[in-house]
Amino acid sequence: MTSKRALEVPKSPIRKLIPYANEAKARGIKVYHLNIGQPDIETPQIFWEGIQNYKEKVLAYGPSDGISDFRETVAQYYQSFGAAQVQASNVFVTTGGSEAILFTYMIIGDIGDEFLILEPAYANYLSLASIAQVKLIPIPTKVEEGFHLPSQAEIEKLITPKTKGIIICTPNNPTGTVYTKSEMELIAKIALKHNIFVISDEVYREFLFDKKKHTSIFNIPGMDKLAIVIDSVSKRFSACGARIGFVVTKNENILKSLMVYGMARLCPPTVEQIGAQNAFKNMQDFIPQMIQEYESRRNIVYEELQKIKGAFARLPEGAFYMTCRLPVSDTEKFAKWMLTSFNVNNKTTMIAPAGGFYITSEKGNNEARIAYVLNATELRDAMQILSKGLEEFSKL
Amino acid sequence: MTSKRALEVPKSPIRKLIPYANEAKARGIKVYHLNIGQPDIETPQIFWEGIQNYKEKVLAYGPSDGISDFRETVAQYYQSFGAAQVQASNVFVTTGGSEAILFTYMIIGDIGDEFLILEPAYANYLSLASIAQVKLIPIPTKVEEGFHLPSQAEIEKLITPKTKGIIICTPNNPTGTVYTKSEMELIAKIALKHNIFVISDEVYREFLFDKKKHTSIFNIPGMDKLAIVIDSVSKRFSACGARIGFVVTKNENILKSLMVYGMARLCPPTVEQIGAQNAFKNMQDFIPQMIQEYESRRNIVYEELQKIKGAFARLPEGAFYMTCRLPVSDTEKFAKWMLTSFNVNNKTTMIAPAGGFYITSEKGNNEARIAYVLNATELRDAMQILSKGLEEFSKL
Repeated sequence: MTSKRALEVPKSPIRKLIPYANEAKARGIKVYHLNIGQPDIETPQIFWEGIQNYKEKVLAYGPSDGISDFRETVAQYYQSFGAAQVQASNVFVTTGGSEAILFTYMIIGDIGDEFLILEPAYANYLSLASIAQVKLIPIPTKVEEGFHLPSQAEIEKLITPKTKGIIICTPNNPTGTVYTKSEMELIAKIALKHNIFVISDEVYREFLFDKKKHTSIFNIPGMDKLAIVIDSVSKRFSACGARIGFVVTKNENILKSLMVYGMARLCPPTVEQIGAQNAFKNMQDFIPQMIQEYESRRNIVYEELQKIKGAFARLPEGAFYMTCRLPVSDTEKFAKWMLTSFNVNNKTTMIAPAGGFYITSEKGNNEARIAYVLNATELRDAMQILSKGLEEFSKL
Repeated sequence: MTSKRALEVPKSPIRKLIPYANEAKARGIKVYHLNIGQPDIETPQIFWEGIQNYKEKVLAYGPSDGISDFRETVAQYYQSFGAAQVQASNVFVTTGGSEAILFTYMIIGDIGDEFLILEPAYANYLSLASIAQVKLIPIPTKVEEGFHLPSQAEIEKLITPKTKGIIICTPNNPTGTVYTKSEMELIAKIALKHNIFVISDEVYREFLFDKKKHTSIFNIPGMDKLAIVIDSVSKRFSACGARIGFVVTKNENILKSLMVYGMARLCPPTVEQIGAQNAFKNMQDFIPQMIQEYESRRNIVYEELQKIKGAFARLPEGAFYMTCRLPVSDTEKFAKWMLTSFNVNNKTTMIAPAGGFYITSEKGNNEARIAYVLNATELRDAMQILSKGLEEFSKL
């Protein structure tokens, strides 16, 4: 008696192995979680203080578009990286980046409308598209090319009259790729030529290694009407459980519709906006160390991967993910086996099979996403256990 | 370039007059907000303590279905009012009651599927149905009858092959009606006969006056497979900004689909679940006084309404709303005029025009919802200003 549409929503590939992980834990196995983008980095103290010092007597509904001071703070943060055009009125606060994605799909797309998206893509883009009943058209990218963009022609041939937008996530989840200024310009050029939106997911904006520079879609001139940025404090402030995200756009019609959708769900959570506002004002106190930490972890993961025969990835450029090819034909089967049938001194490693990040069926079945969200010692141990698991698995 | 569906979502009738209220405030007018269900009652200290004493170092993603201890606490609370069948596994925590409604619509209904709903209805049932693209079929109820149920035949004649469920909200927003045990049995009987779900919104479960008893759909035997309860802590704990709600159901298929939808948006906010858990364990410390306070306010509002010539309502039985008929043909026009053109000693009263609570166009245009969410003195003043406004408006 459930709806057809509910049965069609794909299960999260990141979360669906959780029962096996729980069973492993129940058997006394320590599970290294490289499967989920849940950082171990501490939420900045200033964020907690915002929550703890909230002094209202009533935990009241906030404005549907977010607390005004918080929106102003976000606008100032945008201006700080050159998005001078962004004002508080362009910031719509959502309940996490997830809601920002869902609302964007529904506000731009009618049922069956199409969005181009770089493949592999963050799995929740797939499940939320299914919930919104819009169609994702994959722009193929390859592990050998570090998941960078294909040619303009390759992208343009996917555009149809139903195409409403191109989704790009930079730095990328699940690949760790940071798109260059030229690549962002290419996306903008295509969008302008075909009059479609660019939905730019920039939640990992600061997560850049090797002194790379980030190009926001707002850094490209002429895109004001077509640029929609998906953003969130989850990773930036290591506050995934806060559920604070935002859509940033100069497009007045989108903003109006966001308000209508926003009113229907009343408001995003209140106290976490205060925490996030604090953190935005003190980013320099914690972001640089955090990025340095992720960069050194990235190095460990990459170094350990090089030692695995038959594994392959290019050096991730940002975020805290690596999508790599592993020497197995079915990483989902392998990931499950790691949880159910393998351990090294009662420890095992959980990875996210990459198949769920691909729209095209059968693609990515020999790839996995590794999130480097553990400290250096644990991470190296986790990677070495992964390596041993692969060796053992190959003998089965 | 927005989608057709986005343009069709009705604006919140409660929130759309806000700009006029803001303008009035900017002119130095004090606005009494009887328009929104935002209680002034203090959030219990124990709720705040749950938030303030949260001692994790990382504000991490929680489980998609909510924190396990919190779900257990909710289950115990359900058992306490006779829903003995409810276990923690039957509780799915959502981001507010709003998300509970949206997910329920989408999980039960495909596009164009129908839900019967008592009319007038809480406006967000209308906007969320529009977002989910399901159709609401109104079951008419009347102010003269205290908005109680029509006959079984009146309800059954609205059922078609597309009908997926009946939505009932008890105690009711926007009417304040508490449906009797016989009425709940009638709804259950119809649902069982036609094999459709009952979506029972019980967020005001404790808000009962004149020693009335509440009947949950879970108190009716035989409904386990068809009962879906929409619940929230917003009103019960005066914590609207917490965004903690839940769907409670014994239906395993619904629970499975809720998990898939839940994973797509990761998790509900974390710290507020801890606050709410605290509050559930200490309800007796604050609920009885709160209800007493609302009952005395209900008496004031009703008493003052009796003095207004041409106004009409039956005595509200629960929640903190009264939907009344006012001696004007267009309460939206009147509500706007109260904000733009009327004041008594620089004070005015804001009400929610009831038209937006009706699916049937032209219905309810002479009705308004009054939320008694102010203290006794302010409430009486607000009602007397309303009365004077009506007198003045009639002369225009």
